[in-house]
Amino acid sequence: MRKILVLGAGKSSPALIRYLIDNSAKEDWYITIMDNSTKHISPEIHKHLRTKIITGDIQKERKRKQIMTDSDLVISLLPPRFHAIIAKECLNLKKHFLTASYVSPEIKQLDPDVKQLGLIFLNEVGLDPGIDHMSAMRLINKVKKQGKQILGFESFTGGLIAPECERDNPWRYKFTWNPRNVVLAGQGPPAKFIQNNRFKYIPYHKLFRRTELIEIDGLGKFEGYANRDSLKYMDLYGLNDISTFFRGTLRRKGFCRAWDMFIQLGLTDDSFILENSKDMTNKEFINSFLAYNPHDSVKLKTQHYLQLDYDSDLIDKLEWLDLFKDIKIGQKNATPAQMLQRILEKKWSLKPQDKDMIVMLHLLDTTLNNQIKRHQSVMVVKGEDQTYTAMAKTVGLPLAIAAKNILNGFIRAPGVQLPLQKNIYDPILKELDTFDIQFKEQIVKIPE
Amino acid sequence: MRKILVLGAGKSSPALIRYLIDNSAKEDWYITIMDNSTKHISPEIHKHLRTKIITGDIQKERKRKQIMTDSDLVISLLPPRFHAIIAKECLNLKKHFLTASYVSPEIKQLDPDVKQLGLIFLNEVGLDPGIDHMSAMRLINKVKKQGKQILGFESFTGGLIAPECERDNPWRYKFTWNPRNVVLAGQGPPAKFIQNNRFKYIPYHKLFRRTELIEIDGLGKFEGYANRDSLKYMDLYGLNDISTFFRGTLRRKGFCRAWDMFIQLGLTDDSFILENSKDMTNKEFINSFLAYNPHDSVKLKTQHYLQLDYDSDLIDKLEWLDLFKDIKIGQKNATPAQMLQRILEKKWSLKPQDKDMIVMLHLLDTTLNNQIKRHQSVMVVKGEDQTYTAMAKTVGLPLAIAAKNILNGFIRAPGVQLPLQKNIYDPILKELDTFDIQFKEQIVKIPE
Repeated sequence: MRKILVLGAGKSSPALIRYLIDNSAKEDWYITIMDNSTKHISPEIHKHLRTKIITGDIQKERKRKQIMTDSDLVISLLPPRFHAIIAKECLNLKKHFLTASYVSPEIKQLDPDVKQLGLIFLNEVGLDPGIDHMSAMRLINKVKKQGKQILGFESFTGGLIAPECERDNPWRYKFTWNPRNVVLAGQGPPAKFIQNNRFKYIPYHKLFRRTELIEIDGLGKFEGYANRDSLKYMDLYGLNDISTFFRGTLRRKGFCRAWDMFIQLGLTDDSFILENSKDMTNKEFINSFLAYNPHDSVKLKTQHYLQLDYDSDLIDKLEWLDLFKDIKIGQKNATPAQMLQRILEKKWSLKPQDKDMIVMLHLLDTTLNNQIKRHQSVMVVKGEDQTYTAMAKTVGLPLAIAAKNILNGFIRAPGVQLPLQKNIYDPILKELDTFDIQFKEQIVKIPE
Repeated sequence: MRKILVLGAGKSSPALIRYLIDNSAKEDWYITIMDNSTKHISPEIHKHLRTKIITGDIQKERKRKQIMTDSDLVISLLPPRFHAIIAKECLNLKKHFLTASYVSPEIKQLDPDVKQLGLIFLNEVGLDPGIDHMSAMRLINKVKKQGKQILGFESFTGGLIAPECERDNPWRYKFTWNPRNVVLAGQGPPAKFIQNNRFKYIPYHKLFRRTELIEIDGLGKFEGYANRDSLKYMDLYGLNDISTFFRGTLRRKGFCRAWDMFIQLGLTDDSFILENSKDMTNKEFINSFLAYNPHDSVKLKTQHYLQLDYDSDLIDKLEWLDLFKDIKIGQKNATPAQMLQRILEKKWSLKPQDKDMIVMLHLLDTTLNNQIKRHQSVMVVKGEDQTYTAMAKTVGLPLAIAAKNILNGFIRAPGVQLPLQKNIYDPILKELDTFDIQFKEQIVKIPE
């Protein structure tokens, strides 16, 4: 019997846990799940013969050691700040380690010791990072094998809602994941990428206005805004000589221009605490970012400030959020970003029947015999319900499959790894296919 | 004989040193001046019987102790980061201490010990902070004495060039002080102030578009942009119940809108190092913040990006700076802000005959017997030349006069102080009058 320890039983865990349980008899697995709170875990999982649910705090050393000693492989779905401590304990106790998070310098430096013990610490094996790496590397290696030279690479991922659930919301967006990350997205130094051999920078207050329009057959129009730092992936993907390299985030067409209104107003700022935030209403919150003028309404002032036409549908989007109403927000000592998040949560939360959708898209421009071609590879995954969301499936299943392959000895790459090698990503992508997590490839026209 | 130690002999020191020397015989002073580099100090000062010039590093403890032991009062013109160490040494050696810098929490907490020893540590006694505090407090106390209630307070200061030296420069601005501070001005959390009892916030990317127009008789039109945090001064000035409180920085009309172009482009960003900054030309620098488009010129792309009319004089201001030319900037591993500073320094440096100008303006709205009045108080100081600049006079003379008053026992307020009390500011402002550093007060119309 092989023992798998899953740390964290939050929103990203259900598909992972279901896969482990479904395969537990065949693979002879015993699955321990640990989290601070485990009440939400279904009775079926609690009662299952091959599972054990532990409520506890992984930060307590004795408990951690005891539970980890009794396992062969540890999967951490905990917040990234816990990973280093778990990874070090895995090294100490000689256990394999898996996460869907970005590998930290702290974990990277364990590589020689991990290698020496023949262990595998596989990071970035979820969705983004995860499926993005694996599918990109598969496509890149395929065209390279065809003798093609790669000129440009663009890649976009979006956590969205299924088209049939968009209709009650003029933003065509709801929170399917951590709302705070959505509100703060793009803040910090400018986004950087390379286009036709020129380094390009987009500051935050222009980021949501310099988007790329993308149309996907059968799904309609999207737009992509640039991720923070595309450049560091060029090296990872072995594309250092490429002339265009861009990574972005997908939203439905129209979202970014509307979101930019919040940025222009200053509502996404997370750097200071508002005076009197406790008693503020939506309207007062907006008004604190507008000039004093006792004669004009807050709505009119907003229109003028943002230079919106009287009949612009952008102002409708703000109105739909009740931004100009005297509804109390109810947040003590809050930053503008925290206030905005609260306002949005009231309108952008999923309804019980809502389903999420993940879209991932790669565009690879290649040349061979003076012919330039654009390879497009698209993945669309919809959630089953609000437990087995597209996000939970695309984050959890790659982890689960990777765990199986490690335990069965199919991944022979000891050390601190990312899923960039064929022997790691190929079997994972193939098995994801059987869960309808698959990429459709075609040659498309390059826009003029 | 009383011994005065001046630490720092930079650009803000000449008027201070001249005052001390001019009064040295009458007051029986001996003046020691210390800096890392003292070569620029004129031979007359070197040879003067009542001065001693020391070249050395104040961070070296033994040297510092030796020099400070032999003085009665220490004036620090060093960069603010050195003040805490000097202040502590002053406490240790029982010397008075003066600076034109903002008081730090580290210095503030010395107050009980400073008081106990009967010493005076007088901070913020330069121009801004300094003359702004003193003149504001004099005006506030005057109208309070008249029984008036204060409704609003607005205050603006600008370090500018004299009108007769503006004509060769469409920006009507040159660097008269630290260029880096000008390039970074306004960055960080939004500017905050209170207007008609409402807290207002302006994010950086809107700061230079939400200015206040100000016209001064005989000098023409200016504009003021909000300083970072006006609110903290309400308490200092005893104006906690005021309904409007605003502090801003003055520029010539038209400057702020033009400066905003740099912000919109992203050129003032100081948070990251540009790729290949070493080889970049002005044009390439701008282009790295514009979208790729091989058909349009960088100038045309800039016009489109900033939504400027073809005949806008804003683009002329950029052209005048040679922004669209292939001139190498020559900065290794530079941030955008450092690159922009270098470009501006080539065009905004003072010519030998140029003179600077300081403008300070207070607007105080009061009410008495249902009559609302606006009190305006304006100070305009022009530099004599590039040594005795308006900046050096307005920073150095208040310090020098304060030093005299402390040594003569006229300031009887032991402790860590700001010049907010009448017995401190009154004699300083009166003596500044004799140097033509004076405020003209009048009642003006409140704009509708």
